[in-house]
Order: sequence, then C-alpha cells, then structure tokens
Amino acid sequence: MTRQDLISLIKRKKSFLCIGLDTDLEKIPSHLLEEDDPIFAFNKEIIDATHDLAAAYKPNIAFYEAYGTKGWESLEKTIAYLREKEVFNIADAKRGDIGNTSGRYAKAFLENLNFDGITVAPYMGQDSVGPFLAIEGKWIVLLALTSNKGTDDFQMIKTGSGKLVYEHVLERSKKWGSADNTMYVVGATKAEMLSGIREIVPEHFLLVPGVGAQGGSLEEVAKYGLNNDCGLLVNSSRGIIYAGKGTNFADVARTEALKLQQQMEEILTKAGIC
Amino acid sequence: MTRQDLISLIKRKKSFLCIGLDTDLEKIPSHLLEEDDPIFAFNKEIIDATHDLAAAYKPNIAFYEAYGTKGWESLEKTIAYLREKEVFNIADAKRGDIGNTSGRYAKAFLENLNFDGITVAPYMGQDSVGPFLAIEGKWIVLLALTSNKGTDDFQMIKTGSGKLVYEHVLERSKKWGSADNTMYVVGATKAEMLSGIREIVPEHFLLVPGVGAQGGSLEEVAKYGLNNDCGLLVNSSRGIIYAGKGTNFADVARTEALKLQQQMEEILTKAGIC
Repeated sequence: MTRQDLISLIKRKKSFLCIGLDTDLEKIPSHLLEEDDPIFAFNKEIIDATHDLAAAYKPNIAFYEAYGTKGWESLEKTIAYLREKEVFNIADAKRGDIGNTSGRYAKAFLENLNFDGITVAPYMGQDSVGPFLAIEGKWIVLLALTSNKGTDDFQMIKTGSGKLVYEHVLERSKKWGSADNTMYVVGATKAEMLSGIREIVPEHFLLVPGVGAQGGSLEEVAKYGLNNDCGLLVNSSRGIIYAGKGTNFADVARTEALKLQQQMEEILTKAGIC
Repeated sequence: MTRQDLISLIKRKKSFLCIGLDTDLEKIPSHLLEEDDPIFAFNKEIIDATHDLAAAYKPNIAFYEAYGTKGWESLEKTIAYLREKEVFNIADAKRGDIGNTSGRYAKAFLENLNFDGITVAPYMGQDSVGPFLAIEGKWIVLLALTSNKGTDDFQMIKTGSGKLVYEHVLERSKKWGSADNTMYVVGATKAEMLSGIREIVPEHFLLVPGVGAQGGSLEEVAKYGLNNDCGLLVNSSRGIIYAGKGTNFADVARTEALKLQQQMEEILTKAGIC
C-alpha cells in the first residue's frame, strides 16, 4: 500500500486506529476453545466487528509463535483474512539481523504472508534494515522510542554530540528510505517528546503503541504528533480485543474501537484533515 | 544446560565450535529436494556428520520462517533431533519486545522448542530481556557488537561518558543476569576489540559469529577472547554446511568442521584448558 493510499484510507474511515492482535488462548473467551482454530476464530470475529473503524491491524507475532506450527497456521489464516479488508497490515515482529538473514525475514513477512509492513529493531544498523526496504511497496516500522520502562537503558542515553540514542536512530535511518516506506514506533507514554521527534521526521508516519493498557492519552498524542497528512497510527491491543469476556466479546470490542474512532474523527475534523 | 555443564562439554569435545544451521532450499544439494522435508533431511545429515565435533548448534530462525508453517515443522524436528545429542542449542532469533511479548517469545523458544538459549536484541532495555532470563536453566545471548557493516550506525556511537553504545549494553546488561545465564554476541571482524570487551565481562561466554564467510580469524579471536573456562563459542555457518554441493555434502561439512575443531583443540591445549 502506498503512502497516498494509506492517507486516503485514514480520511475515508476517519480513523487512524491500529488494532493489535495479541491473541492469547488464556485470555480469549472460553467458548472459543472448542473451535478447531480458536485463535483464528477469535481474530475473525474481532476483525468482522471492527474493520470499518480501523485503519490498520497489527498481529503481534510472538503470540502466534508461542503456539508453534499451529500458531503459524492461525497467523497465515489471519493475514489472508485481513487482506480481504481495506486495512494496512503490520507484522509486529521486531526483527533485524545481518543482511542475508533480514532478507529471509522480509521474505517471510512481506512476501509470503504479504503484510504491508513489519516492525524492525535498529540495533544492527543500515544493512540489517535494507533488505526490508528493498521490497517494493512495503514498509518498515522502525523502533525509535518505545513505550516500556527499558527505554531509559539505551534509547535515552546521551551521546557525545548531545543527542539521545533514539534521536540518532531517527536521523540516520530517515536517509535509508523515505516517508514513503518508513514509519517509526514512538511510545505514547512520552507524548510530549513527540514534538522533538516531529522536528526530525515531520513527514513520516508514527506508529504509537501504549494508548490504553500501557497508559498514554490520545489527545496528547494528537497534539504533539499529528501532521498535515495525519501521520499517525495509534495502536490499542488489549483495551479493545479483551474488553469483553463473554460470547458477545466482539460487540464489546466494537464499542471500545468506536470510542477511539469517534475521538479520532473529532481530532481529524478539528485539524481540517477530513 | 548449566555453565559448568557447558564448560565440561567443551573440554570433553576439545571444541568450542558452534555450527549455524542457516538452511536454505536454494543452497542445499538438489537431490534432497525430493525428500518430504528437505530442510530437516539436510540438517539431520549435517548433525549426524558433525555433532561429535561441535559444542553447539544455532538454527537461524529466519531461514525457517521464510518457509512458513512447513519451516516451523522443520525447525521443530531439528531441535528435537539436536536435543538427543550432547550439544548446547541456540535459537538465533534476535527477539526483544515489551515484557509480556518477550514472555511469549521465551515460551516459544526456551520452553516449547526447548532451546538452551536465544539471541536477544537489547534496544528495548531491561524489561524486554527479563522474561527470557526468568526461565530457570536457560540462557540469553545478547547482541553487543555484531559482525556486520551496520555496527557503525549505533553500536559504535560515542556517548557523553566517553563509552561506546555497545559498551553501555555490556555494562548495564551484565547486572540483569550473570555469567551463568547471559552470553554476548561479539563479531569476529573486530577481534582486537575483544580485549576491551573482556575487561567489562571477563567471565561471560561470548558467541562469536563471522569466522569464515563473514571474515575473521580463529587465532585472533582466541588471542583476545579466551578466558580460563574457554568462554567462547565460535560460530561457522555457510563455511561448513555449504562446503559441499553433492550427495557427499555431509562428509565435506565434517571435513570443514574437523579443521576448525583441530585448531580449537590446539588452542585449548596450549592454554591449558584441556
């Protein structure tokens, strides 16, 4: 999906919501455990109930790998089903390795599974990221400033030039690709830091996790992160998909997604984006 | 496997060789493509031919994921087969995410697949690494200084304190676990830098990729990296597993593995380790 297609999608749906599919057999409603593939059954109901409200979905690959071969089957079915909807699909995989190995991950997620984008870890540098960028029409979503406590350990270290490590990640990596194929992960728990980030990458889309279960407010994120094309995908996982516990879980998920979509519509309208 | 068990294994086999299983359908001998599971068929022959010479094996997970569900089946069979041998098994996965997600990766690789250790990326900090360390008897192999060109992009940045980013990674992370459950990835193309690394982590095992196809000399690595318990696992992947192209590929792989094991035996004997 091109950048322009993504922007049109956001305007049409009046939503920059990304729904994280962190599907866990221990958390899904128990009646689904009788299904042949409870993970896919859960995802399908969630997708059916929410896809008109969401710009993007983000299956969290760890949750599928935790079930081995069966988990991969569920992932394959989930992405195939998502491809039938009008949404941008991100493999939340946090991969990154030497070139030929990153090339295999790119093949796995961007070609075989046909995700639109994949989250990538920057530690190994440009040649570990390049193979993902080499695939036409696909995106990387590079970790910059994450939403967890451990950001202080390395991302926030001050370097000799006075910049923080995550600022180096933004500055260097933005030259590897462009705003047409690179997004950044920026944690919502640090919303005020988004204004500094917007100075470095004014045009790029930012994927913001951490609204909801991880704390962080949508208004704050929009205040500091919105650009003229929206430029944001804001993720919620557990706050939507596990909002309901019973047989009506998908309806409850829709209610939660709708609340966020309505806030987003207000934000987009106020900003004159749609 | 405990640290003491690993040290005993190395002394008994007179080898600190790790064999990387980067198994690629485009590179394995063509006669194997007629097998039901060519990847496992290849791995099984390589393992049979080399397991007495190797201290460790390191399946590179990207190469299995590139084949989807079938690749995961090959991986499951490979690790089950490796578990029957006296070797230390590392999932080369380079994972790392927020706590509950890292917990799912830990479950996937250290519990379900029962690897002894997993390579982990440090960018997200302590709480992204903790869930791997929480599993009794298992190891993390944390990226410190990798063997690719991109090390210059972030790992080698000088920080305000004068230390390089990878030195921060070593210093902080060594307090998260201990030399009993933490190893580090250190690229062999920077062998002289091993002496500085040994000052920070004198006791820890170092996993050294990049001998062979990625350049780097075993003598140099041993000169700067060996400690009293050996403290090294030196990896070779393509230089061993793809040394032969015909039906005798496993014999050719054994010949290459034997060359490295013999050099290692000489190094260990000279150092009085065995």
